[in-house]
Amino acid sequence: MTPRTDIEQVELANTALYEAMEQGDAEAMDELWLDGQVSCVHPGWPVLRGRGEVLRSYALIMANTEYIQFFLTDVEIDVVGDTALVTCTENILSGGPAEDDGAVGPLIGQLVVATNVFRRADSGDWKVWAHHGSPVLADGADEDED
Amino acid sequence: MTPRTDIEQVELANTALYEAMEQGDAEAMDELWLDGQVSCVHPGWPVLRGRGEVLRSYALIMANTEYIQFFLTDVEIDVVGDTALVTCTENILSGGPAEDDGAVGPLIGQLVVATNVFRRADSGDWKVWAHHGSPVLADGADEDED
Repeated sequence: MTPRTDIEQVELANTALYEAMEQGDAEAMDELWLDGQVSCVHPGWPVLRGRGEVLRSYALIMANTEYIQFFLTDVEIDVVGDTALVTCTENILSGGPAEDDGAVGPLIGQLVVATNVFRRADSGDWKVWAHHGSPVLADGADEDED
Repeated sequence: MTPRTDIEQVELANTALYEAMEQGDAEAMDELWLDGQVSCVHPGWPVLRGRGEVLRSYALIMANTEYIQFFLTDVEIDVVGDTALVTCTENILSGGPAEDDGAVGPLIGQLVVATNVFRRADSGDWKVWAHHGSPVLADGADEDED
């Protein structure tokens, strides 16, 4: 395996965060977050602080999500020293709890933007320090054209 | 003046960001942001990237805001090396454009949570690297109790 640049490593860590959600993998999620004063904002939620609160929220969301898939676009990564700032658009497709016949509930699409902050841990791995996701309600970029 | 700790300096920089908004001070806003790949998400907006786009968005918002006041609560600051992660709740009171008689329009209250990331610049000053604000739509913390 060829050595990867910081940007490549951060992109892999960012992708892993969403894959852990998709797979409902609480153990992978646990390993992805920094051992420190982490913070997390899910779309429409207040701030969650600390590993306990953050990991419990993911366990809760994963337990209540039958199906979820993230298509990431506009991924922008800025690395300065041991900190990385990532912004991306999460194009989310998710399904509610299964119906009685075992089928996945109706699928819904959602547009969320995220700011994810990573730190290089002592192990050398990039870990999530903060995640902030929010619903896109209006196209502010267009208003900016005025 | 006594020297201030990093946490105190970051808290002052965070407060200054909101004061610049309150005062509609585009010049102060310009000086508060890092000279780099900054990013910004206003509540409900897509991601804005780069100083030009970010500062134009603030100029636009300030031009369309007759009155705005931020009451910050739950301010939590984590400093690691030259990076600081701040989360806070913005209790916002704002007024629309003035009526014909010169009075401020109806006041509205808004609850927004923010993740603000600061970098210590070469000057020693803490500058904004990223701001992400989002509306609080549901009390996720309560759901977490289940």
